[in-house]
Amino acid sequence: MATPTKAVSAPRKPGRPPADGIDQRERLLDAALASFAELGIAATSLRALAHDNGVTPAMLHYYFRSRERLVETVIAERLLPVMAELKLRLTDKAVPDARDLIREFVVAMYGVIERHPWLPALWVREVLPDSGELRGTFIERIGPELPQPLARRFSQAQADGQLPPGIEPRLLVVSLIGLIMVPFAAAPMWRRVFSAEDIDTARMLEHTLTMLTAGIAA
Amino acid sequence: MATPTKAVSAPRKPGRPPADGIDQRERLLDAALASFAELGIAATSLRALAHDNGVTPAMLHYYFRSRERLVETVIAERLLPVMAELKLRLTDKAVPDARDLIREFVVAMYGVIERHPWLPALWVREVLPDSGELRGTFIERIGPELPQPLARRFSQAQADGQLPPGIEPRLLVVSLIGLIMVPFAAAPMWRRVFSAEDIDTARMLEHTLTMLTAGIAA
Repeated sequence: MATPTKAVSAPRKPGRPPADGIDQRERLLDAALASFAELGIAATSLRALAHDNGVTPAMLHYYFRSRERLVETVIAERLLPVMAELKLRLTDKAVPDARDLIREFVVAMYGVIERHPWLPALWVREVLPDSGELRGTFIERIGPELPQPLARRFSQAQADGQLPPGIEPRLLVVSLIGLIMVPFAAAPMWRRVFSAEDIDTARMLEHTLTMLTAGIAA
Repeated sequence: MATPTKAVSAPRKPGRPPADGIDQRERLLDAALASFAELGIAATSLRALAHDNGVTPAMLHYYFRSRERLVETVIAERLLPVMAELKLRLTDKAVPDARDLIREFVVAMYGVIERHPWLPALWVREVLPDSGELRGTFIERIGPELPQPLARRFSQAQADGQLPPGIEPRLLVVSLIGLIMVPFAAAPMWRRVFSAEDIDTARMLEHTLTMLTAGIAA
């Protein structure tokens, strides 16, 4: 799978799909994903996407057929694999207690965001708002794969006395996602509000894990 | 101050500003705010706003002059008063320790959201994304009023040994906002993912306070 940071030479001249058409298709998918995260899906112009990547609108059509198909391809080849990677990591071994599972979830999400830095912005734009174009995908295709199994494990952990009764196991999943995603999505803002260029990802992770496992009340 | 739920009779016929022009102006401001939160500022059509509220585009212009002025008026007369209300509540009395201050902040925010249910959606749409039209307002006008003083108090509390060293006082403000806002903004999603119609606002508050004060590790 091509990465968004893959070195690419000067934009290609428009024309027929080249011999390395697979690479070009991957590159266009990454560019579409970056634009979805930065501008939103509705505000992504296919014409601008083609132009910025040195292909004709006809070539974009050749690869993806339509806007709907492009969105569906980004979901299938970029978003769902990331979720599958997360699921594998969280379910392929026995996690003894809730505290370890929570730590594992946070660390796994930080790793995913490091490798796929578009994720928090895409979540803010297309999942969190009521009109988000990926909300349906999250509810129907991701919900049963990751949030629901996690909530069931938290519920079991609570029944075993590992979580205080005040915790709501389903809301715990929501709270964890918010605690992880918001500091990344809002980083350009809080860095300015707090003049906080000194806070790096390692400090963000330490802070978040401390909030979750040590609690804030010393 | 008129509330969004204020009873309003049938949409008014277009014409000159009526005798109750002040009420109408308030009503149009509330409608603009609701649309900003639901659709986003850029996607709010002034023509549709006028039509849906039974006034002519000319009358909308009479009250607010321009789109920019309408946004500025919503900020000045709806958003900033809410922030001032929060600030007053958090600073008008001595709060002895970090744990009480955190509890007070969460409870105050829940109260604000109950009275102004547009807040989480507006935050998701216009503050959190890099291109959010209210991000500048938050950085320049709200940041120094609420987040910065809160972070200073958390920093002092940490120096006094009330917060574990792993906590980053500035990130704590970010984490709190995320922990409060995301469950409200994402409620239509998690209610479907988890079939969670049984979770009410009181349960959300209890859960959030438990995460923050009792910690999740029993």
